[in-house]
Amino acid sequence: MSADPHPWATTLEGLHAEVWTRLIRGVHDRRAAARHPTLATVAPDGSPQARTVVLRAADRASATLRVYTDAQSAKMTELRTRPLAALHVWDSGAHLQMRLATHVTVHSGDAVANLWAKLPEEARLSYGCTPAPGQPIPDALAYRKTPDPSVFTVLELRLQAMDIVHLGPQHRRARFSRIEGWAGIWCAP
Amino acid sequence: MSADPHPWATTLEGLHAEVWTRLIRGVHDRRAAARHPTLATVAPDGSPQARTVVLRAADRASATLRVYTDAQSAKMTELRTRPLAALHVWDSGAHLQMRLATHVTVHSGDAVANLWAKLPEEARLSYGCTPAPGQPIPDALAYRKTPDPSVFTVLELRLQAMDIVHLGPQHRRARFSRIEGWAGIWCAP
Repeated sequence: MSADPHPWATTLEGLHAEVWTRLIRGVHDRRAAARHPTLATVAPDGSPQARTVVLRAADRASATLRVYTDAQSAKMTELRTRPLAALHVWDSGAHLQMRLATHVTVHSGDAVANLWAKLPEEARLSYGCTPAPGQPIPDALAYRKTPDPSVFTVLELRLQAMDIVHLGPQHRRARFSRIEGWAGIWCAP
Repeated sequence: MSADPHPWATTLEGLHAEVWTRLIRGVHDRRAAARHPTLATVAPDGSPQARTVVLRAADRASATLRVYTDAQSAKMTELRTRPLAALHVWDSGAHLQMRLATHVTVHSGDAVANLWAKLPEEARLSYGCTPAPGQPIPDALAYRKTPDPSVFTVLELRLQAMDIVHLGPQHRRARFSRIEGWAGIWCAP
């Protein structure tokens, strides 16, 4: 039997710690899998919605994550109706699937002025579009991007639970929840 | 101005065709981005759910996709309540985000016996687990995988709409819908 390349996957503590290592790496390393998670929400009509987002912050102590968006985007309408989001990362290097159930709090205006101030000019172009993102336009390039701090919006994702799968020589799956202090239990994969 | 590395992104027809090229590549090439899309559903409690799936078939003429699952998995409970799924692919090579809204039909038993017959023995291990996937177990490896054709389930995803974003020198976004014969319109990105 060959050595397990991911010994951290054999204990609940190890698995939980590795998830946070990978999430934090996503914030700082553009090439990390967790840099670009998929954020799933539910539309007012009850349909599932999923799109790529950029992970902007990850804090293990409070078990919160942060992503940025435009106040005019469809996901804001969805989150106002149902402030829940599932964040999904498949990290092929770690053979690790992370499914994070979160409650979402929306911050904008003065409360996020310090984060806006830290954004490079080019990054600011992602916040502020005329017409609004998703609106029909007569031609592919018939829109204008103008950085607009009034639409810059920070989503604070407060983790409630994690469903983690490691695909190794033998598959392992664990669930961790805030209410259990992130202690974790094993589940059938 | 440098040449656009993705000239197909400049027309609605080109973008639509490229999406299908990438989806079909996902079926046949283990390294293609579309091999492992994220499938988002809505749980009976209204919460969004997302997980990685393997793309098994893609047919442009009928605009349908196929993935396999275990009848005992949580997503089956979700799909029985609400037979809607969003399939999400971020193809970094093409700088292309594909968001596919689908209606899901479930097939099992005799109707999928031919697909089961074609599955290699190792792949069959993904269908049939005791206890059922997601059930708590006392230890990480306290489960048994036994191939079981009676839980092998095929999800047929009938595309209703596509929301496509290309991140190029200038970003482009288009929406295509079945009801419009997949003609497509441009949208603000």
